[in-house]
Amino acid sequence: MRMRRKKHREDRIENCREYLAGNVDDFRNDFKSIFDNKDNEIHIEIGCGKGKFICEMAERNPHINYIAIEKNLDVLVLAMEKVKEKGLNNVKFVPGDANFLNDAEPKDKCDRIYINFCDPWKKTYQAKRRLTHERFLSIYSKILKSGGEIHFKTDNKDLFEFSLNSFSDYGLRLKNITLDLHQSKFEGNVMTEYETLFSGQGMPIYRCEAIFK
Amino acid sequence: MRMRRKKHREDRIENCREYLAGNVDDFRNDFKSIFDNKDNEIHIEIGCGKGKFICEMAERNPHINYIAIEKNLDVLVLAMEKVKEKGLNNVKFVPGDANFLNDAEPKDKCDRIYINFCDPWKKTYQAKRRLTHERFLSIYSKILKSGGEIHFKTDNKDLFEFSLNSFSDYGLRLKNITLDLHQSKFEGNVMTEYETLFSGQGMPIYRCEAIFK
Repeated sequence: MRMRRKKHREDRIENCREYLAGNVDDFRNDFKSIFDNKDNEIHIEIGCGKGKFICEMAERNPHINYIAIEKNLDVLVLAMEKVKEKGLNNVKFVPGDANFLNDAEPKDKCDRIYINFCDPWKKTYQAKRRLTHERFLSIYSKILKSGGEIHFKTDNKDLFEFSLNSFSDYGLRLKNITLDLHQSKFEGNVMTEYETLFSGQGMPIYRCEAIFK
Repeated sequence: MRMRRKKHREDRIENCREYLAGNVDDFRNDFKSIFDNKDNEIHIEIGCGKGKFICEMAERNPHINYIAIEKNLDVLVLAMEKVKEKGLNNVKFVPGDANFLNDAEPKDKCDRIYINFCDPWKKTYQAKRRLTHERFLSIYSKILKSGGEIHFKTDNKDLFEFSLNSFSDYGLRLKNITLDLHQSKFEGNVMTEYETLFSGQGMPIYRCEAIFK
């Protein structure tokens, strides 16, 4: 479902400008530069949507700095307003998609990447667009520390199957795989907007972690 | 469903005695000793049931030697009679369970282990009995070559989830994971009796390969 263009979107984003990453070229090579507390770990969410997940994570973990990437400005603005309303100082936003990280050469690498309910790109010829395709794993490998983790959730069984194979074939170590997150013993799960909707309809949610060596 | 005790079971097994592994203690330390063609690779199926899978595999792959382990003598006899009827010389049977391999120190290690539709042992306190529990992986690690593979199929989602984690936590590399084998592009699948039944009812079959380093 495409979201209707938000009224006064640019004004509203401007009103939250302290939460934007600023100069993206500088930022791409120094993730910590934009945060007050430069000693914190950096976790990135690719495709934060309306921001429920990143906002709750940032509230629960004030000692972690979060970077949220989102290409759809109509949902980005809602995420930014959520973070502003809560006065969180450990979240910054980047308007864009995962390709923004393509040429990144960060001096301090990050610790974790979250990919939640990304587009499954169902057709075989679209596989390269999936955020868990090796093309993207190669990008993530340049910005994640050794031992850095991808935490991945989806409601799409085919995408999950594709992703498990893609992670494993790329040499990542899989951990905490679940084929039905909400029936599992996994603790501390923070739900996204999509997840609340889909799991409320009884659909299983698939989740795993993939560790870079 | 427990199978009724086969009439004249011992006589019927005796009638196929050339397909038995013979002295298990000798055999355990020299898998090749019981086959005519000692240059063939060795593949083992743990729990061969009525033998449909091992029989078809052996027919398709005359250059591989198969060892089928089965503790239930009432189904073992059926598997042995199938192999005898087809006159296959590349299958031998061991009456017993996976623990038979426990003290094995084979001089030539084997290349592959098949585990098809094993008992899921659903209760948490029964986890140690699952054939993909680390207790068994430790046994398999002693009889498989470096690069040796476990090929695993099940209709039980919870057991599959458990097994993916168990394989990965043990340091095995996962490959060709599928969450719905009969809807996947996997080629050359040989069905077991259970698989024919369950997949015929529309139940998904889960499958993966796990590679020892």
